[in-house]
Amino acid sequence: MELHFLGTGAGLPSKDRNVTSICLSMPQERQAVWMFDCGEATQHQLLYSPLKPGKIEKIFITHLHGDHIYGLPGLLSTRSFQQSDLQLEIYGPLGIKEFIEVSLRVSGSNVASSLIIHEIEPGRIFEDEGWKVDAIKLSHGIPCLGYIVEEKAVQGELKVEKLRHMGISPGPIYRQIKNQEITELPDGQQIKRSDVVGPDKPGRKIAILGDTTYLPELKDNVEGADILVHESTFSADEPEMAKAYGHSTALQAASLASNANVKKLILTHISARYHQDDAQILADQARSIFPETELAEDMRVFDIPKNSSDS
Amino acid sequence: MELHFLGTGAGLPSKDRNVTSICLSMPQERQAVWMFDCGEATQHQLLYSPLKPGKIEKIFITHLHGDHIYGLPGLLSTRSFQQSDLQLEIYGPLGIKEFIEVSLRVSGSNVASSLIIHEIEPGRIFEDEGWKVDAIKLSHGIPCLGYIVEEKAVQGELKVEKLRHMGISPGPIYRQIKNQEITELPDGQQIKRSDVVGPDKPGRKIAILGDTTYLPELKDNVEGADILVHESTFSADEPEMAKAYGHSTALQAASLASNANVKKLILTHISARYHQDDAQILADQARSIFPETELAEDMRVFDIPKNSSDS
Ligand SMILES: [Zn+2]
Ligand SMILES: [Zn+2]
Repeated sequence: MELHFLGTGAGLPSKDRNVTSICLSMPQERQAVWMFDCGEATQHQLLYSPLKPGKIEKIFITHLHGDHIYGLPGLLSTRSFQQSDLQLEIYGPLGIKEFIEVSLRVSGSNVASSLIIHEIEPGRIFEDEGWKVDAIKLSHGIPCLGYIVEEKAVQGELKVEKLRHMGISPGPIYRQIKNQEITELPDGQQIKRSDVVGPDKPGRKIAILGDTTYLPELKDNVEGADILVHESTFSADEPEMAKAYGHSTALQAASLASNANVKKLILTHISARYHQDDAQILADQARSIFPETELAEDMRVFDIPKNSSDS
Repeated sequence: MELHFLGTGAGLPSKDRNVTSICLSMPQERQAVWMFDCGEATQHQLLYSPLKPGKIEKIFITHLHGDHIYGLPGLLSTRSFQQSDLQLEIYGPLGIKEFIEVSLRVSGSNVASSLIIHEIEPGRIFEDEGWKVDAIKLSHGIPCLGYIVEEKAVQGELKVEKLRHMGISPGPIYRQIKNQEITELPDGQQIKRSDVVGPDKPGRKIAILGDTTYLPELKDNVEGADILVHESTFSADEPEMAKAYGHSTALQAASLASNANVKKLILTHISARYHQDDAQILADQARSIFPETELAEDMRVFDIPKNSSDS
């Protein structure tokens, strides 16, 4: 499972950074890509990544500013041209449906059949056996969301040695013991699952926030995340500017990461005012209070390993 | 005056070619850029060109397929962010207004004040003292236009030697002689302008066609153009495919160029099936009947020199 940064700039594309898009390549069993925001030329960035438009299963839009959505019509057209048969669901604030539908209709694109668009409010927006996604409210002048993606806990491993000592040899019985709270053996012996199965392995948690002013109250939402992706449009010395424009500083992002005990903070949405080396200053500012900080770059990929049960 | 190719590919962006956009940098006295089509990431291509978004005065859209319009919302937002005070006029088929207005409204962009959108039919769509633009009807499944841009003829030069021989010395009288059909001198002598001014210098003519099947009847419209930009989506051996998909072959483009006695043919809208060297085959096919053929490449620039009066 990996997080791919396709575009990491703020507002306008530059030679260094494209406008926002991030992809989460889901674990192997799912074989799918979840995208977060889709600024103009996101499909161009995909040409330089191992990810394929046809594998995109969900697109989560944080807000409707152009640098987060203007790549959608082109990506959807290209995806349909490649005749992907994977259904695509798009989640975003009110208005996303009109933008997509008008763009596709006017240009004579025919992708509607495999497309579902959800105009959402904060809350649980998706859940299946393995994953759940919550949208949380941010503060950016227009409706803006963050997405908390959580993998459900996975059952611990069977204590095979203990079972052998109890005289129970491997076989179909092992599956029964794992699936039932109590399993009765042919000889009448009762096996309690909790005695022979290790503790649950916690799932992964990835918090990807859209543009926002500093909101310390998000601590509970992002608590313990494996990765927190937070915007860092301004440097630590411009908190007033950041607030006035609905953005955060690098230090504010680090404060949230620190208070919420996340494992790693990734700064993105970097203003074109900060060229290559200057942008590292943002990361340095954040590291002063939260050392596990990384600076996103276009096409940079972060691995998100499975949690072990003792972590 | 130059023609800048920003995107020269067909349908989808590739690593070699972006989707369609062409810019005409107008002569110095005008200091403006006229754009033809604006596929996704056209503003990104502009970052690598000497042309500035704020200098764009007119955008002519050939048709509403996504690869010709999806770059408009981003370009307009960036242009307004740069606070250009140049008014922008956009010309295109019915539907272009809805696409632009919905995209800008939904994303909270505020560029309307300096923007005029004309939904046009074939015919004269613009004329001022120096230039005129006609839209002509093409054949591409949906309404599709070509644009014929013509510079008006410029008055010839005053024959200064002849005037001196007639005893008329340089001074304000020279301007009068140039501006009036007949000028009466203080001594009663009458000077006919046609006797002392050389022949008009013909203006330049640039024909930029959108996607189209082969239309030999366009000969009259593009007759004598300095440059004909024609799509060449298919190779000479696939005229049936070309027709079925509403496109032309390289050879068909060359036939039109040859029949209409244009000075130079530029092939564009090249399918991603033709990689670098393969694409040269398209140009070679065209050159077999029209030697003055060039193949467009992204960021390639063609000079369009002033016509001399004897050309
Ligand atoms: Zn924003
Ligand atoms: Zn087309």
